[in-house]
Amino acid sequence: MRIAVVGIGLMGRPVAQRLVDAGHEVAVHSRRKESAEAVLAAGASWADSAAAAGDGADLAITVLPDPDTVEAAVLGPSGLLAAAAPPAVVADMSTSPPQLARRLAAAGSERGVAALDAPVSGGPMGAAAGTLTIMAGGSPEAFARARPAFEVLGTPVLIGGPGTGQSVKLVNQLLIGGIAGGIADAWALGEALGLDPEVVAGVVGRGLGTGPLLEFMWPRLIRGDLAPGFKVDHMIKDLALALAEGDEHGLDLAAGRSARERYRWLSGAGGGDLGTQALYRHAVRDRADAPTVEEDDRP
Amino acid sequence: MRIAVVGIGLMGRPVAQRLVDAGHEVAVHSRRKESAEAVLAAGASWADSAAAAGDGADLAITVLPDPDTVEAAVLGPSGLLAAAAPPAVVADMSTSPPQLARRLAAAGSERGVAALDAPVSGGPMGAAAGTLTIMAGGSPEAFARARPAFEVLGTPVLIGGPGTGQSVKLVNQLLIGGIAGGIADAWALGEALGLDPEVVAGVVGRGLGTGPLLEFMWPRLIRGDLAPGFKVDHMIKDLALALAEGDEHGLDLAAGRSARERYRWLSGAGGGDLGTQALYRHAVRDRADAPTVEEDDRP
Repeated sequence: MRIAVVGIGLMGRPVAQRLVDAGHEVAVHSRRKESAEAVLAAGASWADSAAAAGDGADLAITVLPDPDTVEAAVLGPSGLLAAAAPPAVVADMSTSPPQLARRLAAAGSERGVAALDAPVSGGPMGAAAGTLTIMAGGSPEAFARARPAFEVLGTPVLIGGPGTGQSVKLVNQLLIGGIAGGIADAWALGEALGLDPEVVAGVVGRGLGTGPLLEFMWPRLIRGDLAPGFKVDHMIKDLALALAEGDEHGLDLAAGRSARERYRWLSGAGGGDLGTQALYRHAVRDRADAPTVEEDDRP
Repeated sequence: MRIAVVGIGLMGRPVAQRLVDAGHEVAVHSRRKESAEAVLAAGASWADSAAAAGDGADLAITVLPDPDTVEAAVLGPSGLLAAAAPPAVVADMSTSPPQLARRLAAAGSERGVAALDAPVSGGPMGAAAGTLTIMAGGSPEAFARARPAFEVLGTPVLIGGPGTGQSVKLVNQLLIGGIAGGIADAWALGEALGLDPEVVAGVVGRGLGTGPLLEFMWPRLIRGDLAPGFKVDHMIKDLALALAEGDEHGLDLAAGRSARERYRWLSGAGGGDLGTQALYRHAVRDRADAPTVEEDDRP
């Protein structure tokens, strides 16, 4: 397959790499060419614009940090739909508003391009290992065409029409925000009460409070590792999207709002690039012995 | 072993029943004798006071709804320590403040009684099946003496000195409160966006947002089952204890506070006896088509 990957960041890099490794013909475009060096060395080709990357492609994948950038990469003057021969399918793997997914689908259909929203869970490690979950929204036909590439990256699931993949992703992020809030509180209280965090993990891990996010975060907290699997600033963006959907439907999503407020505080205090496990810093911020966010205890 | 069980409610009943079934000599006391009918029929004996139940016992277990009742059952004029021959070990399986556990331990030692705090996770089903996790605080000697009875009920873990079992339990409840908040938000948003909750569970269940609490709550939400595994009012009590500990240590436990506020609203709206999975009702309360809390959709 001829595949364009637009956006070679933390996520786009392993996505492109894996597609190259699987033998696909991959063209990449990114804001900074340097970030693509490794995939270019591995056999991908460089394009000076999204349009050039996607020209004549079977599938173009966008993996970008925010909705505006996605919109520009698809609908902009040098975006994918502006190519002489636009890609047959455009799949947005970024977490974007469902409305944007529907707008891209509508704009695409005018040019004969099938659009899919295809946000993922699993992070860079999941992309590198081919174990992402891909939450797709769009037509079954577009899904079928993208599927061979998606299966190189993980497990694709077609939820429904345009926007439904993004909707499920936002539900997932709300859930994760709530759990992260609980983990932050639990960590802060356990530490304040002088409990051995290994013992706490052993006991709590036997009950209803356990789960893969705890299993991811807790050992990192024990060793003081706040390096990002998923960045605070990205979580703020995703929660904002979820809360905006909630507002539109008259919902009061209090756990998500609480998590967003805490993450915003953390970002404002200089922790936007930390991993989401750093949230406990908010809970302990008024303690006399609280570490400052700037204190570099990252390994 | 001669064992007293004080408090024959939702939890005390299966605890006493299982100890009877394991061949222990069990005396029970409870506020209302009727609630003990089944365990009396199974071979337990009735006592008119905690003191009478615990007289000459190897172990007395309290399983009571709140700290005041625990205090009265142990330290009161007809409490366990007032028996002619007080029990060798008193274990409080209720969720109580760590301070109370330390006070009971101090009062016990004056009468030659070893006190353990021994709160549990696993609920009535876990008690009936003998799969509780028992978080114990106290001396290794007291733990060793109580252990044969504890092992009938589940897996006992000695955390440390008096109060440490309660501390771990409060950490566990904070975690559960946060997760429950996330599940409430996720359910409310998924429903508002018209997503099939079975599909959402399938996708979310593959990622970091999954875990046993989601697996417990989600199918119940799908079938509209708000019957309690764990009651809203009990969660409010546990979160209050955890938040009080947090206050004492200068912590801002925002996820726990948010969950408590929502559960309080739910209780105030008549849902105190619902299961904790009913929390989503708070998120949707302002929607035009929101069900009232009183609407009985319990099976």
